[in-house]
Amino acid sequence: MRDGDTLRVGDLDETDLLARVVPLMPTQALLGPGDDAALVAAPDGRVVATTDVLVELRDFRRDWSTGADVGWKAVAQNVADVAAMGARCSGLLIGLGMPVDLEVAWVEDFAAGVAAACREFGAVVVGGDLSAASEVVVAVTALGDLAGRAPVLRSGARPGHVVAVAGRLGRSAAGLDLFLRGVPDGPADLLDAHRRPRPPVAAGPAAADAGASALMDVSDGLVRDAGRIARASGVCLELTTSGALGEWITELGDPAFVLTGGEDHALLACFPPDAVLPGPFVVVGRVGPRGADPVLVDGRAWTGPAGWDHFAR
Amino acid sequence: MRDGDTLRVGDLDETDLLARVVPLMPTQALLGPGDDAALVAAPDGRVVATTDVLVELRDFRRDWSTGADVGWKAVAQNVADVAAMGARCSGLLIGLGMPVDLEVAWVEDFAAGVAAACREFGAVVVGGDLSAASEVVVAVTALGDLAGRAPVLRSGARPGHVVAVAGRLGRSAAGLDLFLRGVPDGPADLLDAHRRPRPPVAAGPAAADAGASALMDVSDGLVRDAGRIARASGVCLELTTSGALGEWITELGDPAFVLTGGEDHALLACFPPDAVLPGPFVVVGRVGPRGADPVLVDGRAWTGPAGWDHFAR
Repeated sequence: MRDGDTLRVGDLDETDLLARVVPLMPTQALLGPGDDAALVAAPDGRVVATTDVLVELRDFRRDWSTGADVGWKAVAQNVADVAAMGARCSGLLIGLGMPVDLEVAWVEDFAAGVAAACREFGAVVVGGDLSAASEVVVAVTALGDLAGRAPVLRSGARPGHVVAVAGRLGRSAAGLDLFLRGVPDGPADLLDAHRRPRPPVAAGPAAADAGASALMDVSDGLVRDAGRIARASGVCLELTTSGALGEWITELGDPAFVLTGGEDHALLACFPPDAVLPGPFVVVGRVGPRGADPVLVDGRAWTGPAGWDHFAR
Repeated sequence: MRDGDTLRVGDLDETDLLARVVPLMPTQALLGPGDDAALVAAPDGRVVATTDVLVELRDFRRDWSTGADVGWKAVAQNVADVAAMGARCSGLLIGLGMPVDLEVAWVEDFAAGVAAACREFGAVVVGGDLSAASEVVVAVTALGDLAGRAPVLRSGARPGHVVAVAGRLGRSAAGLDLFLRGVPDGPADLLDAHRRPRPPVAAGPAAADAGASALMDVSDGLVRDAGRIARASGVCLELTTSGALGEWITELGDPAFVLTGGEDHALLACFPPDAVLPGPFVVVGRVGPRGADPVLVDGRAWTGPAGWDHFAR
């Protein structure tokens, strides 16, 4: 595994490794990094907080994704969770576990991907931790600022509300399918959708300002995540493929990509019928009364594959 | 690895596993868990934030520490970092990566240890994430509230200030040494000091209120961490073994435990000469002008082992 020319993580101590990667990322806070903890502004007296763990071979593969792709994705899925509350990201903390024989260049590339995603999504890194591990493990915590808004929960959808999506669905799953079928030279936009999801983070606060009654990011598939809003709200989410969903299904060629594919981190929202939907949102259904199924697709229960489960074997 | 009677992580889906472990922990926030993110009060308009990653075989061993020990330790070292800013913990986010053949009972025990530490240190769990992994990986983020205090940094120590420690040093390293030497039936208080460190978290805000000029938690060893304050402040920390440090060295039998042993998470502070030290602090030295060495022990540079480095092989 070792060779003389390649610098490995285990060739450096923690201080030297930090000195190489921290300057690559946008770091900004009221203070730090460099102390025991960061200090982040929380101007409205509350802070949104969410965390996600990404594990090599479960959440990414180093032969399919570069270090930069992994850094981007780790940031993207966390800022999406912040947006899904109606907030903007005010800081990221990034924990990274690495094999000691991992190339330092991979870690630097990871930091560059974090930096690119921070620029894209308007985020900064305020803290982190490095550790040795058997495989690459990324643990990101995102903090967010609601700017005085009430957080938009999953529990406010009511019959008669419209169901809408900001961002595209199914493209990450279609890209993953290309990798799984051994077509890594397939359409670059689909491969990139899997490696570098682009959640429409500005649509989160916009949905809150427009009076959204429920909001979440679609990380585990539309049917599964719509079911979460349905159960939290005590309603049924009645999806229709006559509009945008149908167009996306036609384009991707498989309803399962659009209805059950995870990791696009689109935003799923419900709005009262009189709400003016913010630009990025397209209507994909309506809210009905609670019934036997939490989610209907064109009036029927979905009988295709379920969404993503982290422990499925 | 599998047997018919033992419930393993891979036998459950994520929802079922969460349903088993979340109720075991004190969860409290302005809302959640159960939405995309938690909402935590930040009454003074700022939030302290810190994160740590613990990896099996690097930071703990499952044959030496129970799940409850690991949960305790993960909480303890993060609340110590919050205390080291002069703040109190206002919320924890806990990411847990686990092999699919890990016993569910271990995860429940881990949650019980988190809960016990939360009770000890006055913390609550506000969010988290579960994932499959090759080894147990724990990623904890702690948030903290300064209650209007200025954060105490590492950079404020000035010549003439006193150096003081709250909590004991060297006991975790002495306990680890017992494990490494194959004496797991050695003194229980030392073994427990390694498995369940007890940072004096109330001493952090107390130090801030008493005017501490520098503050940090001793996680990598006294000499190494004192060097961090020295470099950040542009001074020399002159330690003396004539007082508390000497008593601890005598008790533990090896100066290296006290001077370089990590993971006790005692608090190291500097105070102006006229400050009234809060109860838990004992004087261990004084601050001198910057010299050739950032730290002196009884007037000489420390030439024994260095402190802990995560990538040392």
